[in-house]
Amino acid sequence: MRVGIIGVSGYTGFELIRILLNHPKFEISYLGASSEGKIDEIFSSLKGVFDFKVSVANASDASKFCDLVFLALPHKEAMGYAKILLSNGVKVVDLSADYRLNLANYEKNYGEHLDTLNLKNAVYGLTELNRQAIKNAKILANPGCYPTASILAVLPFLPYIDTDFGVIIDAKSGVSGAGKKPSTTTHFVSVNENLNAYNPITHRHADEIAQHLSTAASKSVNVLFVPHLVPLTRGMLISAYARLRARINPLEVLNEFYKDEKFIRIRTEPVSVKNVAGTHFCDIFAMVKDDKIFINSAIDNLLKGASSQAVANANLMCGFDESLGLSVVSQFC
Amino acid sequence: MRVGIIGVSGYTGFELIRILLNHPKFEISYLGASSEGKIDEIFSSLKGVFDFKVSVANASDASKFCDLVFLALPHKEAMGYAKILLSNGVKVVDLSADYRLNLANYEKNYGEHLDTLNLKNAVYGLTELNRQAIKNAKILANPGCYPTASILAVLPFLPYIDTDFGVIIDAKSGVSGAGKKPSTTTHFVSVNENLNAYNPITHRHADEIAQHLSTAASKSVNVLFVPHLVPLTRGMLISAYARLRARINPLEVLNEFYKDEKFIRIRTEPVSVKNVAGTHFCDIFAMVKDDKIFINSAIDNLLKGASSQAVANANLMCGFDESLGLSVVSQFC
Amino acid sequence: MRVGIIGVSGYTGFELIRILLNHPKFEISYLGASSEGKIDEIFSSLKGVFDFKVSVANASDASKFCDLVFLALPHKEAMGYAKILLSNGVKVVDLSADYRLNLANYEKNYGEHLDTLNLKNAVYGLTELNRQAIKNAKILANPGCYPTASILAVLPFLPYIDTDFGVIIDAKSGVSGAGKKPSTTTHFVSVNENLNAYNPITHRHADEIAQHLSTAASKSVNVLFVPHLVPLTRGMLISAYARLRARINPLEVLNEFYKDEKFIRIRTEPVSVKNVAGTHFCDIFAMVKDDKIFINSAIDNLLKGASSQAVANANLMCGFDESLGLSVVSQFC
Amino acid sequence: MRVGIIGVSGYTGFELIRILLNHPKFEISYLGASSEGKIDEIFSSLKGVFDFKVSVANASDASKFCDLVFLALPHKEAMGYAKILLSNGVKVVDLSADYRLNLANYEKNYGEHLDTLNLKNAVYGLTELNRQAIKNAKILANPGCYPTASILAVLPFLPYIDTDFGVIIDAKSGVSGAGKKPSTTTHFVSVNENLNAYNPITHRHADEIAQHLSTAASKSVNVLFVPHLVPLTRGMLISAYARLRARINPLEVLNEFYKDEKFIRIRTEPVSVKNVAGTHFCDIFAMVKDDKIFINSAIDNLLKGASSQAVANANLMCGFDESLGLSVVSQFC
Repeated sequence: MRVGIIGVSGYTGFELIRILLNHPKFEISYLGASSEGKIDEIFSSLKGVFDFKVSVANASDASKFCDLVFLALPHKEAMGYAKILLSNGVKVVDLSADYRLNLANYEKNYGEHLDTLNLKNAVYGLTELNRQAIKNAKILANPGCYPTASILAVLPFLPYIDTDFGVIIDAKSGVSGAGKKPSTTTHFVSVNENLNAYNPITHRHADEIAQHLSTAASKSVNVLFVPHLVPLTRGMLISAYARLRARINPLEVLNEFYKDEKFIRIRTEPVSVKNVAGTHFCDIFAMVKDDKIFINSAIDNLLKGASSQAVANANLMCGFDESLGLSVVSQFC
Repeated sequence: MRVGIIGVSGYTGFELIRILLNHPKFEISYLGASSEGKIDEIFSSLKGVFDFKVSVANASDASKFCDLVFLALPHKEAMGYAKILLSNGVKVVDLSADYRLNLANYEKNYGEHLDTLNLKNAVYGLTELNRQAIKNAKILANPGCYPTASILAVLPFLPYIDTDFGVIIDAKSGVSGAGKKPSTTTHFVSVNENLNAYNPITHRHADEIAQHLSTAASKSVNVLFVPHLVPLTRGMLISAYARLRARINPLEVLNEFYKDEKFIRIRTEPVSVKNVAGTHFCDIFAMVKDDKIFINSAIDNLLKGASSQAVANANLMCGFDESLGLSVVSQFC
Repeated sequence: MRVGIIGVSGYTGFELIRILLNHPKFEISYLGASSEGKIDEIFSSLKGVFDFKVSVANASDASKFCDLVFLALPHKEAMGYAKILLSNGVKVVDLSADYRLNLANYEKNYGEHLDTLNLKNAVYGLTELNRQAIKNAKILANPGCYPTASILAVLPFLPYIDTDFGVIIDAKSGVSGAGKKPSTTTHFVSVNENLNAYNPITHRHADEIAQHLSTAASKSVNVLFVPHLVPLTRGMLISAYARLRARINPLEVLNEFYKDEKFIRIRTEPVSVKNVAGTHFCDIFAMVKDDKIFINSAIDNLLKGASSQAVANANLMCGFDESLGLSVVSQFC
Repeated sequence: MRVGIIGVSGYTGFELIRILLNHPKFEISYLGASSEGKIDEIFSSLKGVFDFKVSVANASDASKFCDLVFLALPHKEAMGYAKILLSNGVKVVDLSADYRLNLANYEKNYGEHLDTLNLKNAVYGLTELNRQAIKNAKILANPGCYPTASILAVLPFLPYIDTDFGVIIDAKSGVSGAGKKPSTTTHFVSVNENLNAYNPITHRHADEIAQHLSTAASKSVNVLFVPHLVPLTRGMLISAYARLRARINPLEVLNEFYKDEKFIRIRTEPVSVKNVAGTHFCDIFAMVKDDKIFINSAIDNLLKGASSQAVANANLMCGFDESLGLSVVSQFC
């Protein structure tokens, strides 16, 4: 199966290449970026490993060479490409926010949407939540990193929590989540030996989390979302808090809910970023005190939170085993 | 004024020395540790700066040389020294947990208490909360780092929050908080590129926070406390969440409550560890969404959360200006 | 082919497992450590990935289950196991220092040798240097991390440098090189925001480098070796300096010398740890000024400097393609 | 004494403020930058500490308010300000490269010089080398960070080394040395878990080191200089190598040479960045093997390598004790 990546020069583009080079069924047949070049010039670590031309991104060209295209572009840019690819019968896995939200939420957070037709048919690619729909998707909206870790943590407890009170999500992310573009906030000297919340409450992922939790719960779920920047390269940790309406054994709930999931691991103690970094796993732990629950999840923000989830979804969309190409051994013990 | 430090070989011991060397009124007259030596052999950075004998810690000896002694010892060890020092008329600032809790809470968290008489007279040294009592204290219980940052954040909002629901405190600390003793959890390779909660809900500082918030509120305040370990050397960040019973402007509440405090800074955006590292400041920010409040504070865990708070309290106990010797400029911009 | 690992609980043990789980020919059939357990209890990141019993290490037991055994033990311990395994006809790849040096150098650096018979037959497993001999080795001495990166850097220039003056090797290593055992020098607070040389000139790897460079040059090569500890988890950088006896184009020399090597990459600018971390590559760069040469190499200390080199050697010893199971894509771009 | 800072918004500007706020004789009377503002908006950690207007930098204005001005500007920019300040009788401490080199070296490395008249009278402010001249300087060229640490290390050994062979300087710096401007090379994700040499041999500080060592030796001293970027915020480590012409005891040489220097500490084992970070110290160690010497020094690149050296020099230029305002206690043990 021939696949392409448009917007290959960022972190998620690199991770997609890393996965696809070890994938038994997908073959990279097109790479597009804002300017022409060679992939091992953009990523010097690929020298001697992968020698492939990068074209100036063009959806029509990509349509000729690919059966499926991963869009690793900024939001607002992705939908322009998606529209053309879809009209040419090419499947699309979009890693941007362009197809993740309903129109109202999209416009509130990102402004005008330019491809509302495809938006309606887009499938939200949280694999564990929407596996069946994903298999038939033509346009897949790959979830944000925070929503992936947050929704997977909260989902099993929706029947037991006070959805009016909702969930408080205290999220911590490594710096790669902020993207490759240099800025004051990603300068080593700004991040190292520092720690802070950013965009508390108003971060755009709050509505993505709330929308999909509400859909899953069939009622409105309140979300208070506070992300934090932590001095590490990759990894994400969620500590979520909610009010219980019933007495439960949280580990039993988790184990039952995810009993058939290969990439969700239920832990008996707090989860660690280190155990999931470099893998497609989401580790989850939970603990109750009186009427409150603490739910704790960890993912690799660039893999389960982006590129490996994208490949897992592409696997399903193409009729392959979901796990093809995905790494399960952490990058360090 | 002659002061001593017992238990000088740890991180808070070093920070006490750092402060006292620049203090206009306190003169170090005694240093005690578990074994004899010289202070610039224990801390090689002090070579050429401070050449002082370290004695095998002995409370009677210390009593001869000191008007006030800082105890930078593990809990359970401190009270043995305190008892003797106090009986010799020496003032004590104890950085351990030994005098921070009422007897019931102490025994629940730390086991038997061996100096219950002095426990009754001990003053909890959260300076902004107990300034008047501190001035007359003979035995001062210097607060834990997490309680310092947590209580200072929540205190101004006690009249406005639902104390039955209480507060959820998601805390993040640098590694120096775990002390100087090498362990698997403080190994560089374990901490670097990692992130995790530890002792969630059951951490001993939960009861310290709850007890003193409840005293301040004159009613029981529920506390759900989840600390996290973050890969940085020093600094602590608190993100606290509560349910409001009234509509408030959180920054107005903070500004009014702390209007006379020199070492509390109210911020108009999320606080950063970097702004307080190396200083005696506690920075606080808060923000409301519907009926929930997010309160955010940052301190240097070894200074405001330990050694500089100890010196501020000692200043008060000796009739000096509270701010003598305290640093206000962060160690890096 | 059935392989075992004795001493599996350290960092190189984990890396061996990581490689072997993806190896098409080797199957893990025995794991030994100092105490019994399960591998996913020792390395919690392996939960759900690899569920295998760890036995109390015993060479006779291992001999029954394995055709080849990797010894990931401290020096002095490894030779006891090797002796028995070899006598049982099991091939041994020893990651310790026990078979790397001639007897004189061994005794100078590590004390008495207890298996001098096998020492004579051991092959030094710097793959690019001794490929033919490795194919027939029964007992393979896997090189140290510093010697791997240093020798590969200097080897091509031996004909052109003043061997009397010799080479000055300024080496920098990540903290994983110091092993998993917690100590003052590996405490996060000691390493983070710090940098220092250690064991300058007298480090035991100096003689390993000198012996094998001298053998390769057929004359004595002087080595001044100064290792440094750097605050990163994995990776090693060598900056070597020597005096030239002839005018050369250093990149031409490198390209010619390594033209058939798949895992040596010649760079046209200074090498970066990031490009090799997570891979089996050694990247090399060199530059001349007047009669001096600066040679610069980078490896992953735990892979090319330990576990992946061990597997590459095992591949050769078993008649397989050298590259089976080895990773070539760096862990981050 | 009224002092100003032009170019206050960078890292060295902040460090100057940090020092000057604790200085008993200097009072900040002018701050200039590229745009108008308040200093606690540029450095949010100064909120509540230092409330001072920042003007659009103008040398004539600064001349009215200041007796001495620190220029913390990029090279090429500084000399325009210096010229005017000097003509107005204001003393200048220039932290840029503009007055550090002779004309030939300047033009080779930085292009045309626009103030050659003052260049002739500028004093190179390596305090320990030029103390007497500094006392009478009107225009002081504050040394670069690499030259400070390198020259202080090598200077005592000039009589004993083969200056034809010269010195090989393997230097490692924290990221703050690269300045505050965000770039690909200072992005957290690029630096963290990475390590590399940059501008080997051709870095502009090579000529600064060679020129001043040659002047001190009264003959040409060859310098091979290779700087490396290390993932830490502040600190610099030099490992220098040279060929001895005589048998010496290196620690005796160091102790004798620096016996009257308060801010040079001779160590008996390899130096550590941690011991000098936050201080005005330069720590030095040296060790001999056969005819080669390894010399090892550490400084805080922003203090002894920039701002505290600038203030020490300003102290001398104004007739004050050299040590006024300088910190001697490291920021962490």
